[in-house]
Amino acid sequence: VIYGITPTYTRIEQKAELVRLSHTLLHVPNFHWIIVEDATSKTELVTNFLKSCGLPYTHLLALTPPNYKLKTTDPNWLKPRGVLQRNAALEWLRTNLDSQSKGVVYFMDDDNTYSLQVFKELRNTNKVSVWPVGLSGALRYESPLVKNGKVTGWFTAWKPDRPFPMDMAGFAINLSLFFKYPDAKFSLKVERGYQESTLLTNMNIKMEDLEPKAKNCNEVIVWHTRTEKTKLKNEDKLKKRDGHGSDLRIEV
Amino acid sequence: VIYGITPTYTRIEQKAELVRLSHTLLHVPNFHWIIVEDATSKTELVTNFLKSCGLPYTHLLALTPPNYKLKTTDPNWLKPRGVLQRNAALEWLRTNLDSQSKGVVYFMDDDNTYSLQVFKELRNTNKVSVWPVGLSGALRYESPLVKNGKVTGWFTAWKPDRPFPMDMAGFAINLSLFFKYPDAKFSLKVERGYQESTLLTNMNIKMEDLEPKAKNCNEVIVWHTRTEKTKLKNEDKLKKRDGHGSDLRIEV
Ligand SMILES: O=c1ccn([C@@H]2O[C@H](COP(=O)(O)OP(=O)(O)O)[C@@H](O)[C@H]2O)c(=O)[nH]1
Ligand SMILES: O=c1ccn([C@@H]2O[C@H](COP(=O)(O)OP(=O)(O)O)[C@@H](O)[C@H]2O)c(=O)[nH]1
Ligand SMILES: [Mn+2]
Ligand SMILES: [Mn+2]
Repeated sequence: VIYGITPTYTRIEQKAELVRLSHTLLHVPNFHWIIVEDATSKTELVTNFLKSCGLPYTHLLALTPPNYKLKTTDPNWLKPRGVLQRNAALEWLRTNLDSQSKGVVYFMDDDNTYSLQVFKELRNTNKVSVWPVGLSGALRYESPLVKNGKVTGWFTAWKPDRPFPMDMAGFAINLSLFFKYPDAKFSLKVERGYQESTLLTNMNIKMEDLEPKAKNCNEVIVWHTRTEKTKLKNEDKLKKRDGHGSDLRIEV
Repeated sequence: VIYGITPTYTRIEQKAELVRLSHTLLHVPNFHWIIVEDATSKTELVTNFLKSCGLPYTHLLALTPPNYKLKTTDPNWLKPRGVLQRNAALEWLRTNLDSQSKGVVYFMDDDNTYSLQVFKELRNTNKVSVWPVGLSGALRYESPLVKNGKVTGWFTAWKPDRPFPMDMAGFAINLSLFFKYPDAKFSLKVERGYQESTLLTNMNIKMEDLEPKAKNCNEVIVWHTRTEKTKLKNEDKLKKRDGHGSDLRIEV
């Protein structure tokens, strides 16, 4: 089973993101979706969406504390995103499965784009598999560098000295490692860009453990797309003119 | 058959957009995808993508003339996008099908988000069917207003006096109308926001002809999402430092 872990939060584009991601996931056999809302209670929108999406899923909650939460005026890189949500999913896996369970864990942000190929590749992960991520790190792609079938370094421009300078979308982990290292997790306290490295060093992973996928990391099979924030300035314009904007009973 | 007409153009996010849209379309029975590249010759990227995407398709070309083309510094609304591409697809339909052919035509931009519901709804279109579009017109949604099952007006803030003030993603047309009105098409010469109105008035469509879908236009089943332009500033940084950026043989 592939366990896909997706943090998600309320904003006007949320349902669109979840809908198109679900259409990809519906093509993946033996997939279980762990959706973790960054909220204090489960929203109607996500609850109803999950009920009707046709995928096997688990719906969890983990609120990012206000002092760690991005303000709308903050640049998006200022604070870590999705950290406590991913940890909540790991806790769920450790509580509801055991060291004999077979599976692979993949951290899937709700706004990325996934080929179907990536799931075929990562399904066969002994420890940690890796591959390039398109549109990442202000480059066409970031990627592990591979020689003779082994990862020997990294193609990246940003903080290349990190132990594992790669995006969350560029690796998957065999489920058994979460039981072998029961304390391995993400952290709100680490330097920016160190989430991936924190989890993998918690698991005592070394570069030589990495299993390159996607033709020895020569193919881009996942893209770090981001969705434009929609400006809703005409809602205010109509409110001023007519006393009300769009009908809030209509879910977007 | 549903004929989906998608203009597309080369930019770094193009493959990601096409991949995730194709995952949606793979769930739609009896669908034929008409992809029209805004280019002088068919690109390898789109050609190979279409060959392997698993959908029935037609690959066409139509170049937007340079004087009508957006510059990267232009705001995106300055010039019409997709006009000649959609017209090329209409010409293909008129040449390769005939007035007895059964089908519905839907104009699908490559960056929008489509529910599976929208295809179920529009499949049954006698003349022109309509429904709300989420994230459109700087509102949560724009929508036809419906009374007693008939369209009586529009919920929109922008140029509400247009004959059909709705987005391209908000309507579908029975194929037979393209043969009944063999000259109906889009135009580079009309005022901004009048593409949809131009085609539909060419076809002599009146408000009373419109067939409301999506629970009398009370549900959002398609979203006008836009994808953030990726900044590739580290490509230049690496070029300066190492003499080269990412490996251009790796397609993104
Ligand atoms: O306040 C937030 C911001 C983001 N996210 C989620 O965390 C992941 C990464 O966030 P985002 O895609 O905005 O980050 P970036 O694209 O900048 O890497 C996504 O699945 C978001 O839905 C979240 O749960 N709470
Ligand atoms: O120079 C261009 C710009 C856009 N498009 C296509 O035209 C459609 C509408 O463009 P876009 O999505 O950028 O418009 P907007 O989101 O602003 O409505 C999309 O399918 C694009 O791929 C095109 O063929 N050539
Ligand atoms: Mn993201
Ligand atoms: Mn668009």
